[in-house]
Amino acid sequence: MEPKPTPPVAFHATGADIDPSDPYLATAARLTQEFAKDAIAGDQAGGRPDAQMARLKESGLLKLHIPKEYGGDGQPWSKVLRIVREFAKVDGSISHLFGYHFHWLSANYLKGSPEQAERFYRLSAENNWFWGNSSNSFSRNLVGRQQGKQYILNGRHPFSSGAHVADYLQVAWEDEETGRRCFAAIPATRTGITPLDDWDGIGQRQTGSGTVLFENVQVSGDELLVSNHRGPFSSISALVAQSVLLNVFLGSAQGALGEARVYTITQSRPWITSGFDKAVEDPWIKRVYGDLFIKVEAATLLANSALTGLDAAWARGWALTEEERGATAIVIAAANSYAGTIALEVTSTIFEVMGTRSATAAHGYDRFWRNVRIHTLHSPSEYKVRNVGNWFLTGQFPEPNVFQ
Amino acid sequence: MEPKPTPPVAFHATGADIDPSDPYLATAARLTQEFAKDAIAGDQAGGRPDAQMARLKESGLLKLHIPKEYGGDGQPWSKVLRIVREFAKVDGSISHLFGYHFHWLSANYLKGSPEQAERFYRLSAENNWFWGNSSNSFSRNLVGRQQGKQYILNGRHPFSSGAHVADYLQVAWEDEETGRRCFAAIPATRTGITPLDDWDGIGQRQTGSGTVLFENVQVSGDELLVSNHRGPFSSISALVAQSVLLNVFLGSAQGALGEARVYTITQSRPWITSGFDKAVEDPWIKRVYGDLFIKVEAATLLANSALTGLDAAWARGWALTEEERGATAIVIAAANSYAGTIALEVTSTIFEVMGTRSATAAHGYDRFWRNVRIHTLHSPSEYKVRNVGNWFLTGQFPEPNVFQ
Amino acid sequence: MEPKPTPPVAFHATGADIDPSDPYLATAARLTQEFAKDAIAGDQAGGRPDAQMARLKESGLLKLHIPKEYGGDGQPWSKVLRIVREFAKVDGSISHLFGYHFHWLSANYLKGSPEQAERFYRLSAENNWFWGNSSNSFSRNLVGRQQGKQYILNGRHPFSSGAHVADYLQVAWEDEETGRRCFAAIPATRTGITPLDDWDGIGQRQTGSGTVLFENVQVSGDELLVSNHRGPFSSISALVAQSVLLNVFLGSAQGALGEARVYTITQSRPWITSGFDKAVEDPWIKRVYGDLFIKVEAATLLANSALTGLDAAWARGWALTEEERGATAIVIAAANSYAGTIALEVTSTIFEVMGTRSATAAHGYDRFWRNVRIHTLHSPSEYKVRNVGNWFLTGQFPEPNVFQ
Amino acid sequence: MEPKPTPPVAFHATGADIDPSDPYLATAARLTQEFAKDAIAGDQAGGRPDAQMARLKESGLLKLHIPKEYGGDGQPWSKVLRIVREFAKVDGSISHLFGYHFHWLSANYLKGSPEQAERFYRLSAENNWFWGNSSNSFSRNLVGRQQGKQYILNGRHPFSSGAHVADYLQVAWEDEETGRRCFAAIPATRTGITPLDDWDGIGQRQTGSGTVLFENVQVSGDELLVSNHRGPFSSISALVAQSVLLNVFLGSAQGALGEARVYTITQSRPWITSGFDKAVEDPWIKRVYGDLFIKVEAATLLANSALTGLDAAWARGWALTEEERGATAIVIAAANSYAGTIALEVTSTIFEVMGTRSATAAHGYDRFWRNVRIHTLHSPSEYKVRNVGNWFLTGQFPEPNVFQ
Repeated sequence: MEPKPTPPVAFHATGADIDPSDPYLATAARLTQEFAKDAIAGDQAGGRPDAQMARLKESGLLKLHIPKEYGGDGQPWSKVLRIVREFAKVDGSISHLFGYHFHWLSANYLKGSPEQAERFYRLSAENNWFWGNSSNSFSRNLVGRQQGKQYILNGRHPFSSGAHVADYLQVAWEDEETGRRCFAAIPATRTGITPLDDWDGIGQRQTGSGTVLFENVQVSGDELLVSNHRGPFSSISALVAQSVLLNVFLGSAQGALGEARVYTITQSRPWITSGFDKAVEDPWIKRVYGDLFIKVEAATLLANSALTGLDAAWARGWALTEEERGATAIVIAAANSYAGTIALEVTSTIFEVMGTRSATAAHGYDRFWRNVRIHTLHSPSEYKVRNVGNWFLTGQFPEPNVFQ
Repeated sequence: MEPKPTPPVAFHATGADIDPSDPYLATAARLTQEFAKDAIAGDQAGGRPDAQMARLKESGLLKLHIPKEYGGDGQPWSKVLRIVREFAKVDGSISHLFGYHFHWLSANYLKGSPEQAERFYRLSAENNWFWGNSSNSFSRNLVGRQQGKQYILNGRHPFSSGAHVADYLQVAWEDEETGRRCFAAIPATRTGITPLDDWDGIGQRQTGSGTVLFENVQVSGDELLVSNHRGPFSSISALVAQSVLLNVFLGSAQGALGEARVYTITQSRPWITSGFDKAVEDPWIKRVYGDLFIKVEAATLLANSALTGLDAAWARGWALTEEERGATAIVIAAANSYAGTIALEVTSTIFEVMGTRSATAAHGYDRFWRNVRIHTLHSPSEYKVRNVGNWFLTGQFPEPNVFQ
Repeated sequence: MEPKPTPPVAFHATGADIDPSDPYLATAARLTQEFAKDAIAGDQAGGRPDAQMARLKESGLLKLHIPKEYGGDGQPWSKVLRIVREFAKVDGSISHLFGYHFHWLSANYLKGSPEQAERFYRLSAENNWFWGNSSNSFSRNLVGRQQGKQYILNGRHPFSSGAHVADYLQVAWEDEETGRRCFAAIPATRTGITPLDDWDGIGQRQTGSGTVLFENVQVSGDELLVSNHRGPFSSISALVAQSVLLNVFLGSAQGALGEARVYTITQSRPWITSGFDKAVEDPWIKRVYGDLFIKVEAATLLANSALTGLDAAWARGWALTEEERGATAIVIAAANSYAGTIALEVTSTIFEVMGTRSATAAHGYDRFWRNVRIHTLHSPSEYKVRNVGNWFLTGQFPEPNVFQ
Repeated sequence: MEPKPTPPVAFHATGADIDPSDPYLATAARLTQEFAKDAIAGDQAGGRPDAQMARLKESGLLKLHIPKEYGGDGQPWSKVLRIVREFAKVDGSISHLFGYHFHWLSANYLKGSPEQAERFYRLSAENNWFWGNSSNSFSRNLVGRQQGKQYILNGRHPFSSGAHVADYLQVAWEDEETGRRCFAAIPATRTGITPLDDWDGIGQRQTGSGTVLFENVQVSGDELLVSNHRGPFSSISALVAQSVLLNVFLGSAQGALGEARVYTITQSRPWITSGFDKAVEDPWIKRVYGDLFIKVEAATLLANSALTGLDAAWARGWALTEEERGATAIVIAAANSYAGTIALEVTSTIFEVMGTRSATAAHGYDRFWRNVRIHTLHSPSEYKVRNVGNWFLTGQFPEPNVFQ
């Protein structure tokens, strides 16, 4: 979104707080421009974003969050998530895949032994792996039978985002005997794994969030993630996931508003009875853009506040206390709920100030609404807002789980 | 509002960004507690907040923004406005008077000669003056006749906030012959000045925003404010005024939400068919508080962003460019509009989650809505939002005037 | 509210469906004009609306709903409630008292024997009685000791609307021994009854909804309401009460919007930067009035639909089935919730399109918001909306109780 | 939408005011069930709704509004529009085509001579013609050259809804010499007419609202519509068009809410932390459905009020006065704006109470939002609301044009 006020005053929705010399953000900005070219076609085609994945790999950004000692760039979550936001301005799917890549990669650190964390970080950096998953927490259709140190997996998982283009997968299943939930990191090419390519969402259409079949898939003992750590930090991955989502929402809102702005300036006609020569002269058009911009700015400030919180909480590592984890959950829940709400409003309302001819499949502006609409369903705002309210009233933090 | 999450995560609506060692904020917090005792009675009585003014004078805070070289504390506008926000949590009138005191005082700097600026800063610091005004920009009923270097004023001004308790007044009038608007700083006790004490607003009831009569009031040449300066900085007082307003709105929202919270925790009964023992257990109550809290947090972040902008713009002084002035106007307009909208929502909605018995005159919770409702009328959100939208679309800044 | 489109098209918010030859509505319209003169003063003074009660008695309208065979006018609830709505356009208190008068009077029919129903209808018609109450369902502080056929009452009730000006009272208490809730109709002048005149609500200020003290108050056996009837019809009084409330809300919204319209046309100034000569030329002003009008019209249509339902349900009498009672409850809940929501929006928003000078205590426009704000708290919209949703989803009707 | 409360109380959103013995509505209900089977596939395919058109023709409903004396059924607009609403519950495109069919057919009556009106009514009834158009009022790219009594048309028109499946077309063009706008009714098979089948809207995908090419298309003198009538009635077709739109919006909202209801009851899972066994037990789910239902009911009542107005205005014929026409325009504008706003809210919000798995292309629920989103752009709510507000304030009616 343009224009960007110069200092001393700056809006954050337009990225005024971005360090222009940051090489990662510069790379992301370049990629975003490239993704923009395929975004509408990708939305219509669904399936696999192969070209985009190739660009991502070439860019080196897949190592962004891997600690430097293991060959990565050692950048904080906030950097990852700013790039998630940037990509979402044009392509919600690649934004989603990029953010979750680090989510699944970091799961090795959170759920595995220190050796596993190191090994997967190092191998991922060396091989430029992309991480996907088949570990949906609602599904109970993947079962593992323990054989010595191995597990043999059979069944299926829905919502296996990224599995269609992943090098490595985070997988989760229930132990056949104990019912205990187990986790492992395995190659996506492991024999017996078949992504069905049946993702049929109304949005986020290249995330490959369909079903993965498992037929006698072997998981070796050193792939099984087992940690000696306990405590609040072990559930921080939920906060990472919620942060990915909220930045997809926010980037979608920013992207939609920015594209609408360009359309209104360059193509919209004034309403026939308005008495104006240009659409932008109509006080109605000004008001709607002003209103949406202010809300997107507010959402951005909340989101940035949440990024700061997540970075700080992550930096605390295993020393993170329950209270610190809870407070971080609250600030992220607030930002997530607000971003989702505003993104829905922006992505639907822009059509009113672009006009009839903007609403074609060729323009593809409706993809923003479809992306946000489907993506916000994964964790209802209602429950986030209640958690924030309950904390505000009583000081109680939500119970750590995969959604909060 | 409690609770305040500890670092690493912090909400700004609860003042988590306040430096606890700041002596001015500590004084303000103490005063706020004192003002809280009289706030409901003051709202009902209207008239003059004499006791509060006495406390303000004793506190030393009336010198807060006067530069150090003239005997003041040299604190930035953001400090003044944080205290405006703090006072508004309990008493919108004293908050308003305190904020505008510096607005009128700084007008000598903006509209007068360097000598006048220095003189009024110095005298104000020495004598602990409180500044009010009789200079409403809509009114054209005060006329001055020039006699040599003097002016003789006759007529009246409405909305003369603070005139009822001021030591010194900023006054404005039209020159009888030329129609030119003139400004001066004169003692409130000057012969011929009569505040009518006729302020009858539904809120902000101790601001004394009524009529002042002028009968043959003499203004001497060295009281007449005449500046050689021109340019964008000369209209920055509009941005100060809009910033006072927005922090009154925001503080009112924060105060109302905080008081409602305490009431709901300690006094509200669960709804009879809810099935809960306590009101705070009802998901409805949680949701409403969560929703309002998130919005107040967003408003706070926007407001803080505006404070940063105003400090930076003020620091540029007469070097301030049109673009810098314009960008500051936009960020303040956004924060002002959002704060007003949210404050109206919060101050009305809280009753629903407090319940029937909360809505008594004795509790006085309705003063928050009445204060915000009347105060937001002084500069319509509609036009601010349009200005933001117009800037977002075209990059054009609003024309500098007393409202933007 | 003006203007009223002529046939063939008519808005209902402006009363286009009113039969101009209806004598009761004509009387009500005349009374409304008279009540308008005292409404602001009454709001400020609180206490007893003696003059208004005198006018009501003179008007004969207190017999409106009494069946013709007992000396009344035999008009349906819809006629009563249209007049409640009419009065609320200027005076929420008298509107409330008038509506509840029939609620308490009809309680004799619903809770008493046929003989009691007839007796109280007949006596009320003959003596032009006004009915109030002291029977708040939340309070458990009034206890009755049975002595033979009599009861002796001791204790107190809050929210005893109308008790300060009533001739007769509906009272309720708990039997000291059994805890059973008992009802009676007794003279307001009965020895031992003392209204404390302590009503302190932020609105509905002349409803006298304060505390009534009972010291050894005797209730005779024939005053004790005991019915042989059971079944859905016996709880229809809840639907009457909810209908009174919703028409107070709706009338307040209609009255506020109508008064605002006149103010904007005759007194509002265009915003200083609007470029218009008159406020009504500003598209912003037009939009806000259009938006509020459409919502008030929608609320009126829902309310009228609810009136039709209530009349039909009442006409079914003791034959009313659970399903019919439930469906009526749903349609009234929907109308009540929507009317309350819109009334809050209208009564707050009008100030924005009237402007700064409208918000004075002398104009008294804020009474509309205060009246609606306090009155909507008596039965939360949240639970009504849930009941509607539950019915829509499952077909289940809410459990009959005093709120639904 | 189910359930339908039985008398004495009835919601209108569920069609309780439909006469169950009406044969046309019974036919429409049967067709709606058939259309439901193809609706999702049709939305995905776009193009021509051939099967649906065949069913429509077989049904006889294409004669519904043709006067009885010319072989039609002589039903009022309200009957046509109730069926538009019914069809829109499942298929926005066929709903649109059906409603506009009568709009174009009746244009012969409004714009032509009495003989033309009779001829086209009679032929249309005899031949069971379907009417489309190529007459977009914004386009100025179709030019006619007069040759004697004939016109030769060359150029193109966008937004030619129905032209792809029409038997007859309403066409409009500018006279090459005078610039005057001309109208005619001609066969869709006339030599030189080529629909490009290039409609690419995000919704209403089978309306064929694309471009029609005209190459030396001949229009004979008796096809040229020329009326001797003037006055308010001649622009009533705008009100018909706005009524078609609003009933498409409303039917879409009703259909979306009804389908969501079934999904939530039968397939939605309770949220994982809700503590409920079924989604419908969650107070959140109940509240959202209650809220949406109430709003759809309000929209239905406004729409029905507009239908009544339109029938009455149409019945006035050429005697219709400016004031009557204006009042009808206002009631339709109010209903149209409200229906559009609510339809957008309903069609987006339903996903939140259906859950993640509902948002698939196979379910096709997003077509409701896409249909409403694109369709509401054709005549901005902003201007309708302003017109209503202007009328409410000043009594002025909007200038008759093709949008109001």
